[in-house]
Amino acid sequence: MEIRCSCCGKTYPVETRAWRCSQCEGLFELKTVSQLKHLRIDRKNFSVWRYRSMLPSLKEQHIVSLGEGWTPLVTLHIGGRAIHGKLEYLSPTGSFKDRGTTVMISLLKKFGIEAVVEDSSGNAAASLAAYCARAQMRAMIFAPAHASPAKLAQIRMLGARLSLIVGPREFAARAAEEAAQKNYYASHVYNPFWLEGVKTYVYKMWEQFDRRAPDAIIAPAGHGSLIRAAYKAYAELLAARLVKKIPRLFAVQAETVSPLYRGWVERADERGELQRANQAYSLSGSLKVRTRSTIAEGIAVWQPPHWHSILSIIRSTKGAVVTVSEEETVQAHRQMARQGIYIEPTSATAIAGFKKLSSDINPRALVVLPLTGSGLKSSPAS
Amino acid sequence: MEIRCSCCGKTYPVETRAWRCSQCEGLFELKTVSQLKHLRIDRKNFSVWRYRSMLPSLKEQHIVSLGEGWTPLVTLHIGGRAIHGKLEYLSPTGSFKDRGTTVMISLLKKFGIEAVVEDSSGNAAASLAAYCARAQMRAMIFAPAHASPAKLAQIRMLGARLSLIVGPREFAARAAEEAAQKNYYASHVYNPFWLEGVKTYVYKMWEQFDRRAPDAIIAPAGHGSLIRAAYKAYAELLAARLVKKIPRLFAVQAETVSPLYRGWVERADERGELQRANQAYSLSGSLKVRTRSTIAEGIAVWQPPHWHSILSIIRSTKGAVVTVSEEETVQAHRQMARQGIYIEPTSATAIAGFKKLSSDINPRALVVLPLTGSGLKSSPAS
Repeated sequence: MEIRCSCCGKTYPVETRAWRCSQCEGLFELKTVSQLKHLRIDRKNFSVWRYRSMLPSLKEQHIVSLGEGWTPLVTLHIGGRAIHGKLEYLSPTGSFKDRGTTVMISLLKKFGIEAVVEDSSGNAAASLAAYCARAQMRAMIFAPAHASPAKLAQIRMLGARLSLIVGPREFAARAAEEAAQKNYYASHVYNPFWLEGVKTYVYKMWEQFDRRAPDAIIAPAGHGSLIRAAYKAYAELLAARLVKKIPRLFAVQAETVSPLYRGWVERADERGELQRANQAYSLSGSLKVRTRSTIAEGIAVWQPPHWHSILSIIRSTKGAVVTVSEEETVQAHRQMARQGIYIEPTSATAIAGFKKLSSDINPRALVVLPLTGSGLKSSPAS
Repeated sequence: MEIRCSCCGKTYPVETRAWRCSQCEGLFELKTVSQLKHLRIDRKNFSVWRYRSMLPSLKEQHIVSLGEGWTPLVTLHIGGRAIHGKLEYLSPTGSFKDRGTTVMISLLKKFGIEAVVEDSSGNAAASLAAYCARAQMRAMIFAPAHASPAKLAQIRMLGARLSLIVGPREFAARAAEEAAQKNYYASHVYNPFWLEGVKTYVYKMWEQFDRRAPDAIIAPAGHGSLIRAAYKAYAELLAARLVKKIPRLFAVQAETVSPLYRGWVERADERGELQRANQAYSLSGSLKVRTRSTIAEGIAVWQPPHWHSILSIIRSTKGAVVTVSEEETVQAHRQMARQGIYIEPTSATAIAGFKKLSSDINPRALVVLPLTGSGLKSSPAS
């Protein structure tokens, strides 16, 4: 197992402190030597570590777990159709991020890392704070000043050092990148171990759906980790003939912060071109948005570093990117609550997105919406 | 299966709209005809309904579920000892109450009930609101005005009609009892179906501990449902020879609201005597407490109707009742967060209680603390 630059191919040992390629600033990916042949499942374990044989190798003593990962599927009724909501918010810190964090922090513990930095709109930071506390590791967090009070209170209570950064989400990222010159950057955006952990939601669904892949997954997308993890996991399962197909993958963005959608409709394939378009958009955007720009704060990402791979994934699976208005998100949020499903607004974008997409999806299709964060995260003052 | 008055023995059909004995005002209990012989587990189901054969009989179409019940056990380090925290807050509405609510609401759906009333310090009401939404049933909730804003926002968002009652917790109960003259009283205190659902945390532990009973359970106690449910479930398992003993059951109360503790230390065995003592205490207490009287709001119950059975259970299992100060609760709350466990202060009383009890509990004993509510429930403004 080693880390490889997805751009120039340069390789790094897994213990590297670099968080992107020192040669070309390319993004890291994890290169595993062995190929998946079958899913070896530890049937007595009901956390993410049930799929330990598919995760980077670790001794028992390095595993930092809070019991995360056993999330239920629940039927949702939307526009006369019954689809599946995967309640990813039934997680130790209230969001799906715990899947990635348990794997990343366990590996960092093995490497002897004692302090980490991270930036986040709130959920990833709360998750990191919890697992660092569990591992007795110091955590320095940079978060937008406009993040939900419930998330900020959670991060503080869990013992992380929290710095609030005024301005759009990316400003917090810049601050973290600077701090990362001295400390390990435990980023849920750049760290390839983190993505390995998120893949476990696919393994769990594979069990829940009796070893089938669903026909479509519709997920809120900021940095796109649910899409990227789903693709990677299903591609491996397909190669091992454990599923017959990769599901269609759909990303949902807020109209007000929609760089992926812009890339999608403009069919921009060349890196430079989209980057320029996004930068112009982001600049004009960031001038407008001193505070939050969408109630879907978890996906308010103006410049997603993985945009290129996200768009190719979506294209190759015959998926799509759609946007939803604030009003549509609010309405979907309320509609879910009226079915007993209490989620944060970010998660409701997937519901609103499904409504827009439903005519494009076979009525008999097996559709899953990962519901990413708890409604308790956005209440009450925010 | 029928409902019986625990005081005079009068029986009622399960569909009764009465919530206590019309003859003597005694408390209801569920009388089942068949005896438990073995635990028939539906191994493909990971919700409370995995234990359906032990629950009141229901057709599939009446089951109102949100996937609740599959909660992890996590090691906690307290005072040099390693014990087990059962993360009951990884539940659809963020508290263990969902176990009881899914069973109660499913039965009410079968009976054709369309509207219910309930009173609660917050968690039971949020749970009821969610399952009523799921069942398309109307819910009227009476809650203390000083309940956590996060809980009140949750109840409202889930579509329940919420009335805030100024004064101690019991004032909300009085209001609900009045409203119950016209509507079904879906009370987590009086309804015997609710307790049947809570028993499932024992079945789950029975599986998690490889068919053993732990040596001790230490639980926060207001109305004492975790204690009562544990006793009932373990007594049935013992009778069926599925465990070798009933664990020692310990109740933890806040010093400032401690009617069970008063009953415990005064060894009051006669109903009248304790009731008088408690009434005097409650009266003087309620004059002082216009707003909340302990940060452990979930157990701020001045007059627990089941006090008599709770105390006999604790006595018969060689348990105890202890109280903890506000400061001890705050400290335990922080200590848990520093281990990555983000709970509400009510749940932290169990931690503080264990510290007081630990010298009385064998160092090699298998000890479980149910952690009842999410930390997100008490943040941030409260």
